[in-house]
Amino acid sequence: MLYCVRMDVRVPHDVDPDRFAALKAAEKARAEELQRAGTWRHLWRIAGQYANISVFDVASHDELHEVLSTLPLFPFMEIEVTPLARHPSAID
Amino acid sequence: MLYCVRMDVRVPHDVDPDRFAALKAAEKARAEELQRAGTWRHLWRIAGQYANISVFDVASHDELHEVLSTLPLFPFMEIEVTPLARHPSAID
Amino acid sequence: MLYCVRMDVRVPHDVDPDRFAALKAAEKARAEELQRAGTWRHLWRIAGQYANISVFDVASHDELHEVLSTLPLFPFMEIEVTPLARHPSAID
Amino acid sequence: MLYCVRMDVRVPHDVDPDRFAALKAAEKARAEELQRAGTWRHLWRIAGQYANISVFDVASHDELHEVLSTLPLFPFMEIEVTPLARHPSAID
Amino acid sequence: MLYCVRMDVRVPHDVDPDRFAALKAAEKARAEELQRAGTWRHLWRIAGQYANISVFDVASHDELHEVLSTLPLFPFMEIEVTPLARHPSAID
Amino acid sequence: MLYCVRMDVRVPHDVDPDRFAALKAAEKARAEELQRAGTWRHLWRIAGQYANISVFDVASHDELHEVLSTLPLFPFMEIEVTPLARHPSAID
Amino acid sequence: MLYCVRMDVRVPHDVDPDRFAALKAAEKARAEELQRAGTWRHLWRIAGQYANISVFDVASHDELHEVLSTLPLFPFMEIEVTPLARHPSAID
Amino acid sequence: MLYCVRMDVRVPHDVDPDRFAALKAAEKARAEELQRAGTWRHLWRIAGQYANISVFDVASHDELHEVLSTLPLFPFMEIEVTPLARHPSAID
Amino acid sequence: MLYCVRMDVRVPHDVDPDRFAALKAAEKARAEELQRAGTWRHLWRIAGQYANISVFDVASHDELHEVLSTLPLFPFMEIEVTPLARHPSAID
Amino acid sequence: MLYCVRMDVRVPHDVDPDRFAALKAAEKARAEELQRAGTWRHLWRIAGQYANISVFDVASHDELHEVLSTLPLFPFMEIEVTPLARHPSAID
Repeated sequence: MLYCVRMDVRVPHDVDPDRFAALKAAEKARAEELQRAGTWRHLWRIAGQYANISVFDVASHDELHEVLSTLPLFPFMEIEVTPLARHPSAID
Repeated sequence: MLYCVRMDVRVPHDVDPDRFAALKAAEKARAEELQRAGTWRHLWRIAGQYANISVFDVASHDELHEVLSTLPLFPFMEIEVTPLARHPSAID
Repeated sequence: MLYCVRMDVRVPHDVDPDRFAALKAAEKARAEELQRAGTWRHLWRIAGQYANISVFDVASHDELHEVLSTLPLFPFMEIEVTPLARHPSAID
Repeated sequence: MLYCVRMDVRVPHDVDPDRFAALKAAEKARAEELQRAGTWRHLWRIAGQYANISVFDVASHDELHEVLSTLPLFPFMEIEVTPLARHPSAID
Repeated sequence: MLYCVRMDVRVPHDVDPDRFAALKAAEKARAEELQRAGTWRHLWRIAGQYANISVFDVASHDELHEVLSTLPLFPFMEIEVTPLARHPSAID
Repeated sequence: MLYCVRMDVRVPHDVDPDRFAALKAAEKARAEELQRAGTWRHLWRIAGQYANISVFDVASHDELHEVLSTLPLFPFMEIEVTPLARHPSAID
Repeated sequence: MLYCVRMDVRVPHDVDPDRFAALKAAEKARAEELQRAGTWRHLWRIAGQYANISVFDVASHDELHEVLSTLPLFPFMEIEVTPLARHPSAID
Repeated sequence: MLYCVRMDVRVPHDVDPDRFAALKAAEKARAEELQRAGTWRHLWRIAGQYANISVFDVASHDELHEVLSTLPLFPFMEIEVTPLARHPSAID
Repeated sequence: MLYCVRMDVRVPHDVDPDRFAALKAAEKARAEELQRAGTWRHLWRIAGQYANISVFDVASHDELHEVLSTLPLFPFMEIEVTPLARHPSAID
Repeated sequence: MLYCVRMDVRVPHDVDPDRFAALKAAEKARAEELQRAGTWRHLWRIAGQYANISVFDVASHDELHEVLSTLPLFPFMEIEVTPLARHPSAID
């Protein structure tokens, strides 16, 4: 099942830069791993913002929550989840 | 270039049903045509709402406006456009 | 899978009363049918408003959309859908 | 009487991790205790967010406030309370 | 139990004046009746707006909904309900 | 003259607990004093939130500002003021 | 006492032009009368909008409501009222 | 002096098409006239919406209001005005 | 030219009290100076909030920005600027 | 292609002044460089706020994101991007 997920990353100005850099590296690795697994199906950068619009393909809400809440940057994210159904005019 | 576009259709309760049905049919045909052309790359229904999240692939803002503003249901839509850049962690 | 759904019914002041009364009766019958089927698991009235908070149990986003979008009062509703995962502190 | 309560937990990035872990453990124990008592009737995780939608069954607003305001994580929560009445189409 | 209720009356510009005048008269009579019964404990006009802030004293959410939803002007109202608990610094 | 005042108390997580406890005690004493004086006519706790809805009876905006801005917890409050006029349907 | 009042006039597109023109003329006459009386102390047009920011000088909330609610265009207005106290740095 | 002005055109679904077409033609002519006069310095279409972002160069707020409020489509517009000052890093 | 300016002062709870007291004193002196110069024409306190509604009379947006951005408390302010034109019903 | 970009700079009150001053100087230099290159086509100060409205002329969303996200003050900015298409009434 597909979910559109918007993630806005809020970086506190006084966060420890090294700690945050490590989290970002872990986030990147995890994102690549989830894309290869087909879970993270689309990942686009919102132009001009530290935010992304993504589409996840998972079997349940529980799985979605597990994937999102274990992302290294999850504690710094505002997340909006929109469940996507099949559109009657979609040809694929 | 990719644009994420959210379209919420607002149907006035006193609209002429036949007129609206004709517009919906024209909208469906146009959406299918644009998908076959690769312009309308993704079209998903927001579960529970008369709304969709789409991704368009066009060459310019002008082309995007031309495509959206000539959709048969355009006069009944609230539209939000978000330009999408390449995400540094995207593997495709 | 569970979805929390908030439905606010907006009744235009100039709607045909008989037509709306018929829709309300059909809505009530459909709601009862869906509850007996276990699909519409909880249905509560928001005190003081023509709105409800419900919990639906369906197999997919598509099924949720099918159920909601075919409700007789759907054209008069503002709907908000929140996917519910299992809470780590839930005992049931 | 039933209340729908949404709780969003806001964790400051510079909070003492040990202190917060202890609060979370106390919160979990208290939540389980209230569920066994029938006070905290439903507890669902909002997929993708550190937030929950719950239904409380208490005798009065005072009791609701007592229960919520003494939750260990209360100081870190944004809470929204919606009183729930019986819906005329509810079959239970 | 006490509920703070804000009611904003939205009068469509093309409503039938006589019909609305009759509803207003019925609303006034009903409000006076509920105040004499002690149900509608406080009723204040928000200065400058066709709106009021009220405090209701009823036994349950169901009773509150029954009282509000049967007000003659209910179909023209936006209503916000806030449950009021006892304040620890209140002396009465 | 009557004013409806909503006060939301925002407690920074890293505030000095002793300092804040002293402010709360002073706030409670001041609130009781103002209630006895008839200035602070109603004080209700919003169930589930560190907030209250109050009604003040003072002679002018200046007096209202003096009373509110000198409350010990004023620096931690978000305040909303609504002037209340006599309602034509009020029987008291 | 002073109140800052913002008035946004919402003109339905299908209102009877003659009726509305008559209301506007009556509004203008009433505004001039209130200004001469010193009640409507300041009246400024918000550049680019059918809206104004005004300052009223009246003795009570009741008087403010009486003045505003009897304005000919009141039924077409969204009104926001802000009570103004004396500023400690004001020199007049 | 420069003002950034955002104009969103709201077209009621039941407006007389001929009347609106005439207004649009008059709007276009007026916009071209104002651009030639240097008053309407920039006029851009917001991609995907019946809205524009413009920059006006006029001598005063009064002149701005005169220009905007006499636009043929003014009654169908939501307008937001932002006064623009010289930016310290602007090189022109 | 006249501008209506709303200033909300946000005082961080952990700001250095002495530093802030000095800024407030400087702000007061500057405000009095600008009022004597006729630039700061009206200065009213919003009753119940650390905020003011003011009217400035300056020759241009640049001058307005210069005046506001050099106010000692500018870094702690949320500011909203509304350009004021002459109202057709204003008698002064 | 043109993008309208609004940038609001949020300066934490406890940021290191020297660090921030260095960032501001770097920002100014970069802004001038981008303007000379024709990328940053318009840069206006929003009167009364630490914010600007700009127009960028770049070849793609990716280039826009690269330019904005590498601005020295990017970490302290809230950014809103609006793609601009050619307006049918624009004469240039």
